[in-house]
Amino acid sequence: MISVEEAMRRVLATARPLPAETIPLTQAVGRVLQEPLHADRDFPPFHRVAMDGIALAFENVAAGQTTFPISATQLAGMPPQPLTNAQTAVEIMTGAALPPGTDTVVRYEDLQFHETNGQRVAALQIPPPNAGHNVHHRAADREAGDLLLPSGVKLSPAEIAVAATIGASTLQVARRLRVAVVSTGDELVELTQMPLPHQIRRSNAYMVQAALHEAGAESEAFHFNDDQEALRRGLPPLLDAFDALVLSGGVSKGQADFLPSMLQELGVTQIFHEVQQRPGKPFWFGEKAGAQ
Amino acid sequence: MISVEEAMRRVLATARPLPAETIPLTQAVGRVLQEPLHADRDFPPFHRVAMDGIALAFENVAAGQTTFPISATQLAGMPPQPLTNAQTAVEIMTGAALPPGTDTVVRYEDLQFHETNGQRVAALQIPPPNAGHNVHHRAADREAGDLLLPSGVKLSPAEIAVAATIGASTLQVARRLRVAVVSTGDELVELTQMPLPHQIRRSNAYMVQAALHEAGAESEAFHFNDDQEALRRGLPPLLDAFDALVLSGGVSKGQADFLPSMLQELGVTQIFHEVQQRPGKPFWFGEKAGAQ
Repeated sequence: MISVEEAMRRVLATARPLPAETIPLTQAVGRVLQEPLHADRDFPPFHRVAMDGIALAFENVAAGQTTFPISATQLAGMPPQPLTNAQTAVEIMTGAALPPGTDTVVRYEDLQFHETNGQRVAALQIPPPNAGHNVHHRAADREAGDLLLPSGVKLSPAEIAVAATIGASTLQVARRLRVAVVSTGDELVELTQMPLPHQIRRSNAYMVQAALHEAGAESEAFHFNDDQEALRRGLPPLLDAFDALVLSGGVSKGQADFLPSMLQELGVTQIFHEVQQRPGKPFWFGEKAGAQ
Repeated sequence: MISVEEAMRRVLATARPLPAETIPLTQAVGRVLQEPLHADRDFPPFHRVAMDGIALAFENVAAGQTTFPISATQLAGMPPQPLTNAQTAVEIMTGAALPPGTDTVVRYEDLQFHETNGQRVAALQIPPPNAGHNVHHRAADREAGDLLLPSGVKLSPAEIAVAATIGASTLQVARRLRVAVVSTGDELVELTQMPLPHQIRRSNAYMVQAALHEAGAESEAFHFNDDQEALRRGLPPLLDAFDALVLSGGVSKGQADFLPSMLQELGVTQIFHEVQQRPGKPFWFGEKAGAQ
């Protein structure tokens, strides 16, 4: 009899990577990435304005200039608007690319606006402390070519955003584990059937399938009565077609508990039989010969 | 400006139950139950044998009897096998219904077997300490009619097993939340498009949709440029068709940040605008008038 920790260690030692498949990004959350993703551009791809306000050249502030005529307005998504001369500023919105000739952004909260001869002018209330203020510089996060996500990561919503950012509309991911859930036991009847007084409905298979679904695996359910011949015929096709079998019942000391010997007869090597836990001490785990 | 905790409190205060729908049990894990489930039988429905071994009448053990001829064998799922006389025992398996005339189970580990004149006989090695030993009594867990699951519980695999046990092959559950994920911003291009130097791909919508999927909601994605007329025409059908809108962009202080005023114009009441967090201080939340 082994401990729960030792059982877990032995189970994990039999784990192998699943083959990859290509799926749309919109279906990839929760799946396991099977390709590395690299930055296709610098991130940010341009000196990105981080606050709504005005863009200006800091050297003018350093030289004492406190009012800046607005020479253009630039929303996010517009090509950078050139300054009409070096002492002007561009009124600019978060997400825009910093105009050539400017290096600093002053946010609306630190400005007051007025008009002089029909010209909109921004007056600094709180001057920027340094060049580059409120600018998220090109490549500050990542450079083009950098590894963003290694193969093998589980894709949470954050990784989905990273993949979208580099235009990965499809992804290579590990295909889902395919599991056959096999209930055994003459006392079990179908859900929709009314059990006789000494029978019960088979509920374990539904629970196991729900747990597998939550873990991201696909499953199919099968039921066998405690009939050695039916199992000897029925199990080999399942061992061939599925990545794993979860069998419920038939592994204790009773007269109908012939699954361990039958599975070994069918080419499954026993890894352990009993685990130090209650309930669930009779827990048989094996590995199919030649599985990879 | 409000705290994150206060924002969460106000968001949750707008929550309302979703209408119910009937779905197959096999698809119900993770959903919210919208009907109470009651026990259709006692659980266990019979005095259930909890160990592989023999069933006998404890009064014989109390009277000093130590060997028991086996009068029948009963596997799980078989109708209870009567004793041929009160001093015999039934060889019996876990999950079977206790035979009439017996009240106690002795497990194989505490027995030795021999044959006398072709009659299989069990000899007690460790006598049972009391009547009822190794028997899981009828109704010990629940009585017929007991509430098993109240309406409103989230269905984990354990609750799926409970529903299966009472034969609930379909369940009433809250339908999934339907969310429109709306990205706005002229700087955003589609995933499959190569952005110009001052553009980026729209990744927020993919992240939000992935997060909604993980939370069990359905979503559809929409994109609008920063075009007031297009939004004024496009948002009302979304406000009508979806339970919630998640809009990304357009709620800060910039010239293209007209969503808060437009949403209010369209009948959405502001609940809060700014939250004490970074990033994400500009966070507008509202509730549609007449929503229920």
